[in-house]
Amino acid sequence: MARLRVGIVGAGGYTGAELIRLLDAHPHLELVYLAARENAGKTLAKVLPTTEGVAGLGSLRLEPFELEAAAELARRVDIVFTALPHAASARIGGALYDAGIQVVDLSADFRLRDLATYEAWYGVHPRPDCVPQAVYGSPELHRSELEGARLIAGPGCYPTSAVLPLAPLLRAGLIDSSQPFVVDGKSGVSGAGRKPGLPYHLPEAAEGMRPYKVAGGHRHTPEMEQELSRIAGHDVRVTFTPQLAPMIRGILTTAYARALPGTTAERCREAARELYSEGLVSVLPDGRLPDTLWVRGSARAHVAYAVDDRTGWVLAMGAIDNLTRGASAQAIQALNVARGWPDGTGLARIAQFP
Amino acid sequence: MARLRVGIVGAGGYTGAELIRLLDAHPHLELVYLAARENAGKTLAKVLPTTEGVAGLGSLRLEPFELEAAAELARRVDIVFTALPHAASARIGGALYDAGIQVVDLSADFRLRDLATYEAWYGVHPRPDCVPQAVYGSPELHRSELEGARLIAGPGCYPTSAVLPLAPLLRAGLIDSSQPFVVDGKSGVSGAGRKPGLPYHLPEAAEGMRPYKVAGGHRHTPEMEQELSRIAGHDVRVTFTPQLAPMIRGILTTAYARALPGTTAERCREAARELYSEGLVSVLPDGRLPDTLWVRGSARAHVAYAVDDRTGWVLAMGAIDNLTRGASAQAIQALNVARGWPDGTGLARIAQFP
Amino acid sequence: MARLRVGIVGAGGYTGAELIRLLDAHPHLELVYLAARENAGKTLAKVLPTTEGVAGLGSLRLEPFELEAAAELARRVDIVFTALPHAASARIGGALYDAGIQVVDLSADFRLRDLATYEAWYGVHPRPDCVPQAVYGSPELHRSELEGARLIAGPGCYPTSAVLPLAPLLRAGLIDSSQPFVVDGKSGVSGAGRKPGLPYHLPEAAEGMRPYKVAGGHRHTPEMEQELSRIAGHDVRVTFTPQLAPMIRGILTTAYARALPGTTAERCREAARELYSEGLVSVLPDGRLPDTLWVRGSARAHVAYAVDDRTGWVLAMGAIDNLTRGASAQAIQALNVARGWPDGTGLARIAQFP
Amino acid sequence: MARLRVGIVGAGGYTGAELIRLLDAHPHLELVYLAARENAGKTLAKVLPTTEGVAGLGSLRLEPFELEAAAELARRVDIVFTALPHAASARIGGALYDAGIQVVDLSADFRLRDLATYEAWYGVHPRPDCVPQAVYGSPELHRSELEGARLIAGPGCYPTSAVLPLAPLLRAGLIDSSQPFVVDGKSGVSGAGRKPGLPYHLPEAAEGMRPYKVAGGHRHTPEMEQELSRIAGHDVRVTFTPQLAPMIRGILTTAYARALPGTTAERCREAARELYSEGLVSVLPDGRLPDTLWVRGSARAHVAYAVDDRTGWVLAMGAIDNLTRGASAQAIQALNVARGWPDGTGLARIAQFP
Repeated sequence: MARLRVGIVGAGGYTGAELIRLLDAHPHLELVYLAARENAGKTLAKVLPTTEGVAGLGSLRLEPFELEAAAELARRVDIVFTALPHAASARIGGALYDAGIQVVDLSADFRLRDLATYEAWYGVHPRPDCVPQAVYGSPELHRSELEGARLIAGPGCYPTSAVLPLAPLLRAGLIDSSQPFVVDGKSGVSGAGRKPGLPYHLPEAAEGMRPYKVAGGHRHTPEMEQELSRIAGHDVRVTFTPQLAPMIRGILTTAYARALPGTTAERCREAARELYSEGLVSVLPDGRLPDTLWVRGSARAHVAYAVDDRTGWVLAMGAIDNLTRGASAQAIQALNVARGWPDGTGLARIAQFP
Repeated sequence: MARLRVGIVGAGGYTGAELIRLLDAHPHLELVYLAARENAGKTLAKVLPTTEGVAGLGSLRLEPFELEAAAELARRVDIVFTALPHAASARIGGALYDAGIQVVDLSADFRLRDLATYEAWYGVHPRPDCVPQAVYGSPELHRSELEGARLIAGPGCYPTSAVLPLAPLLRAGLIDSSQPFVVDGKSGVSGAGRKPGLPYHLPEAAEGMRPYKVAGGHRHTPEMEQELSRIAGHDVRVTFTPQLAPMIRGILTTAYARALPGTTAERCREAARELYSEGLVSVLPDGRLPDTLWVRGSARAHVAYAVDDRTGWVLAMGAIDNLTRGASAQAIQALNVARGWPDGTGLARIAQFP
Repeated sequence: MARLRVGIVGAGGYTGAELIRLLDAHPHLELVYLAARENAGKTLAKVLPTTEGVAGLGSLRLEPFELEAAAELARRVDIVFTALPHAASARIGGALYDAGIQVVDLSADFRLRDLATYEAWYGVHPRPDCVPQAVYGSPELHRSELEGARLIAGPGCYPTSAVLPLAPLLRAGLIDSSQPFVVDGKSGVSGAGRKPGLPYHLPEAAEGMRPYKVAGGHRHTPEMEQELSRIAGHDVRVTFTPQLAPMIRGILTTAYARALPGTTAERCREAARELYSEGLVSVLPDGRLPDTLWVRGSARAHVAYAVDDRTGWVLAMGAIDNLTRGASAQAIQALNVARGWPDGTGLARIAQFP
Repeated sequence: MARLRVGIVGAGGYTGAELIRLLDAHPHLELVYLAARENAGKTLAKVLPTTEGVAGLGSLRLEPFELEAAAELARRVDIVFTALPHAASARIGGALYDAGIQVVDLSADFRLRDLATYEAWYGVHPRPDCVPQAVYGSPELHRSELEGARLIAGPGCYPTSAVLPLAPLLRAGLIDSSQPFVVDGKSGVSGAGRKPGLPYHLPEAAEGMRPYKVAGGHRHTPEMEQELSRIAGHDVRVTFTPQLAPMIRGILTTAYARALPGTTAERCREAARELYSEGLVSVLPDGRLPDTLWVRGSARAHVAYAVDDRTGWVLAMGAIDNLTRGASAQAIQALNVARGWPDGTGLARIAQFP
């Protein structure tokens, strides 16, 4: 099979770097085009020193991207991943989509089905017409819609970490979805992106554990609620607490919901094993609790469950790598599904350890 | 004022090390006796290399402790801190108490008022007769009982991080205490003590965020419930989720409770400012959320509040250093109160930063 | 091409874990046999949680290894990697080699050509007869010997980090090899293996930078001297300073040698580019200095050079990942060369970043 | 004794923060004035969150500093610490000195005795007239000059870590000072200051060990050479390799010099014990090598020695905390000496551990 030609717009950030790493190992794809804003004109090795001396990669030059050139670009590439700030992503992704290119967008621009919700959190949407074409790129939860999709919205990192463990419980009716859930998330610092700042300055981050944008202040809240509500069949509410953990990568999310009568940890695991019989989600066995270390650099998500009988709380726990399962690898997995390839095509099966 | 003579039994672990550091700077106390089990016979510099070359300290030799020698020890010391595993602590602390020594115990042995609860979690209590004499050493919450106390039970680290932010809300009637709270705690690795193990081995800990002993499995659960129930005036239940964070020190706890009508973050802060007008708890102003970095090595606790109006959840957040406010410094603060000295006597007012 | 069947003896440690990860992605190899001592009988997922839920891997059971079964094992596997403590490795590797299996040994047992030197540092050699058969598995420096090799001695991590940057300078006659070099190495904690201990306990390792076994006390000294002497054509001496750095992976080595007249950094780079025109060593361009982050999890080594004209010192710097280029990935690269495959076969071209 | 009034100009950075912490605990000093550039107008709690809720400190407001107001400031303070970028420090420190205030400067401006050297590395000196008045503030090595000094130049962090272990060897004639030394330094990230940047961004710093400004490119080179030459009595040359280590604080420096005949590690230790019989430098006993963890937050330096008989290299190793012994605490120690107080006045004797 001839390899499809792939481009990345926004190659200079962390999700861009992960895309480059992962796409370089994909058997059906060939990376032929890299664009970036600030770093345009530089070689890839300059921006991503891991490619220093790697034949055909380190010397690749990052190109600037011009909206007008989208049509022309369609002659060079079959697929483009957009890894840009919101709004810019919709503008550029929309233009590429118009030009007939298959687009996998890693921003928030095409995730929210409801335009009003989008605009409440992000401002005016530059391409509202594209929103209905987009498929939410969670392979395990939107598999059939993804088949053949030409515009894929890569899910957010925190929502992935919360929705994957909660989805089976909602589907199986094991938790009371009329009560707002508590979603307590802890993310590694790379989740904040590649732009330096005092909260991410090693001396102030390496021994600091801290919440931010709590109590409904984080933009991933509506995305979680959209996906959970879709599964529940009615409006579900969550209070979401994002917290920065002193590590490079990884999200551990502990979600709390009220148990319905008869719910046990084993029934939760059964529901998850059933839902995730296909895909890249591992349900941890009894006695094992998740650890971000175990999924670092991996497309795989780990989920686990516990029920506190004394208090009636169900704990649905998820561990992912924010840059892979939470962004770039999940985007490739979604593309794999869209193209009819097995989910794990081109993705390493085992994470680096330790 | 002549300085009182102080000893430590269990000087080789992390809370022992912190006691040595803090007591060395206390104006009214003089460290004259150090005992340890495994490290008996060694110089302090061998066990605690920070004392290498420190006059009168590094060359101190750790003594073994014999139960029978308690009476004799009473001639050498006025006060002993016991920093030992549970049961051993009660046995030794009890003997010292019998001998007329003022005892500040850092184990769990004298924290739980209810013997049946103790025995359900820890096994047979070696000195049940001492339990009624002990005062729970939370200076801000047990101030009057502490005055003159001769047997002080230093509070646990997680309970301190959860009870301090929740207490004002219970006292002021701002949260619904009939519903079980969610207490989501994140602790630095020193909380697990000085005994090496794979979960604390840097290669497997430095990029790992992980829960353990969830859903009622952690021994700090009954201690939290005891203290919260005491304030509420009725039984309060919590589901407590301890989680290991990849850092040396610090606990960040995010506790979730249902808001009662009219509860706002500002009312929570007011309640906390009132309760903590005396002592070493800082109530963070609007717009600030806690960070473990800011209390590292400090006796001070930081608390903060948020209310999610969309979902009705109140967030009560606390940040402490597990080894200082969560153990050794709080024990000294409690002793200060017991002795009639200002809370902060001998304790640095500002934490090391960064 | 039918895939060759591969086994690992010593699958429970870090180099074993890396072998499993890397071999799982190798197109010509199939992992069919895993043996371990302490963990025998357990599933791989229990020992290496990154394989949890990975089809065909997580449920693999680690087997015990019996010396007597070597011949029988020859029917199950074509190649075995031994990742064991020294002496045990020679015994087992030797038996497998006798049985006709191709052996890639990751211990020190077959690295030293001179038996007396081996025995001075490690004690009696269990299989001195095998030593002459073994090829030192540094692909760039022993390429022709490696072709067809049936017993490969994977190089040590520190020696790799020092020899790769120094070798071109010795070959090109740019440094004075009659004077002992200074080799200052800094290694991540995983270099110490998977056995927990106080020096690797996160609370005592995460903010600690420390030397150990200095001034000729480290066993990697004779290995460095052997390889450097071989290139120089006469005895070369180094003082080697190993130092533990507070990170999971990576070795940065700064080697110091006296410049010969006319030596410049650019001439050093030229010599390195020439020597490393084939293989997986990148010579960093002028203005770039190495960083362990850039080679994490990678088979690739980075080397760089500087000359201090004021003092006459040449700095030869190398950065590798101790577990990949310093152990498992270099072993696979050596096997690739032995089998006539391109060096990078089955090895990711780009390291995870960040 | 009435406490002397102290001010800090440049209170918003890390050395400023350390000064505030340390001065707050000093029995003879009272912090009454804080000035900062960017953060002028803010409360201290905003800039240094460790002071949140600390009576009399957190609510202090940072003032702007105007050169013209120096004379007026002399009525408010007796002593000022300047913690500013070079040139700015000389300008402001000079004006304060002119106004009769005792000045302790933490920049490089008054460290170099030779103006031409200063200007080669830093550019035009704004106050060359002050240079002869300044005393290099290394208490153990400039004790008698410091007595009564009114303008103190706080030593640089790397020079402190290198000069303290080398000084006794030069004084005792144990190393060959005609040959250029190798000084291999490893510093925690706080050494780079509080300004965020990609090299200090946790995701790119936490697993990275890297050299920078090598081979004579770092400004601390002439400072080291000045101090070493002073002791040697003739010009001494070093090649200095600064390296960033993935930790918050600490410098470990390994210096290499050629042994003179008869030099042993024990003779090195003897020479150091003699030189450091007074002051805050601990000479580690045989069998102990330094660790940055052991001096974190402390004024104390640890030095240790080894001799590699096979190669003739002497290793002189030093561990300090870059922000305390390498900056703020050493500045206070120097002030103590200048004022006739014991070296350790107001400085904790034991570092936080772990």
